[in-house]
Amino acid sequence: MAKDSRESMVRSAAALIGSRGVSATSLSDVLSESGAPRGSIYHHFPDGKKQLAEDAIRWASERVLAHQRACGGTTAASVLGCFIDMWRQVVVGSGGSAGCVVAGVAIDTVAADDLLLGVARATFRSWLSLLTEQLEAAGVPPGRAAPIATATLAGMEGALILCRAERSSAPLDAVAEELMRLLPPETPRTTRANR
Amino acid sequence: MAKDSRESMVRSAAALIGSRGVSATSLSDVLSESGAPRGSIYHHFPDGKKQLAEDAIRWASERVLAHQRACGGTTAASVLGCFIDMWRQVVVGSGGSAGCVVAGVAIDTVAADDLLLGVARATFRSWLSLLTEQLEAAGVPPGRAAPIATATLAGMEGALILCRAERSSAPLDAVAEELMRLLPPETPRTTRANR
Repeated sequence: MAKDSRESMVRSAAALIGSRGVSATSLSDVLSESGAPRGSIYHHFPDGKKQLAEDAIRWASERVLAHQRACGGTTAASVLGCFIDMWRQVVVGSGGSAGCVVAGVAIDTVAADDLLLGVARATFRSWLSLLTEQLEAAGVPPGRAAPIATATLAGMEGALILCRAERSSAPLDAVAEELMRLLPPETPRTTRANR
Repeated sequence: MAKDSRESMVRSAAALIGSRGVSATSLSDVLSESGAPRGSIYHHFPDGKKQLAEDAIRWASERVLAHQRACGGTTAASVLGCFIDMWRQVVVGSGGSAGCVVAGVAIDTVAADDLLLGVARATFRSWLSLLTEQLEAAGVPPGRAAPIATATLAGMEGALILCRAERSSAPLDAVAEELMRLLPPETPRTTRANR
């Protein structure tokens, strides 16, 4: 029960910070969004909002990594497609208003102290590492995999911003198509799909 | 003099909102950053922060459009290069901490009411229109120019976020190189450079 209220606060913080940044997310917002009892914030997060933001990043990051590990696939197109679809679901599920909690921390220079910015940096790097590793495993040349991964992450983070302004997933779809064009013509490691 | 204090407030608001969003930007911050006298906010901006945010977007957008019109050049590579370099200067000039005021509004769902979000949307669209038009004029096929423009804007907005986390322009440079790869092999309209 206590564990449940902790997790629901972290989940609510991730959603709120992703859609408005750290400064505009109050502890009261997190409580009312999560339905957790008032006293529980300082019980679970004695260091307050920054601790909650840090945990929200870690929670979201684990989900991103788990999703990407589970569905990355064996072709470069399926690796990118899996990552892109995850963000498309975020946009479509929220009518274009949701965002990324890591970006919500990184963009907020008032709230992002060195520690919190370090967590954001480490998180982005862990996503880029996994994407790069999966692209290389799918046959993308080593020198190409890392920049394609960076362009993909930047493209998705930027697309989330354009989707908010448009309240539509159309910008993300356009960006996704362009990212796919960055892949070398054929990079299947297994040819099962072609048999 | 009054005009100067108005413009310096708008300029300060653009920088602050770009680097922290609307909610975390207080009118006091804008006053102390701009050095404008306290009474001048409600003299120039009777509707308060949202009016200031709206003017900040318009001011920044005019500068973006003027820069891009002046330096777009005649090849597709120079069109993209001009747009990318503008954002690179923003990142390098701030040690990675600056951002885009339009994104600062779009990401802040608390502060961005329909009117303000509409201004952000119209601004992004005006940048995309100009980029698309310039790419087409440089010989990029009509069906390709618009999605390349969208990928470029999203790539830059996302790169600004990654650059903040890294406090470095390296992510933007990697994204820029990938965006250049989206251009068709040769699209010079004039061959003057090749003579």
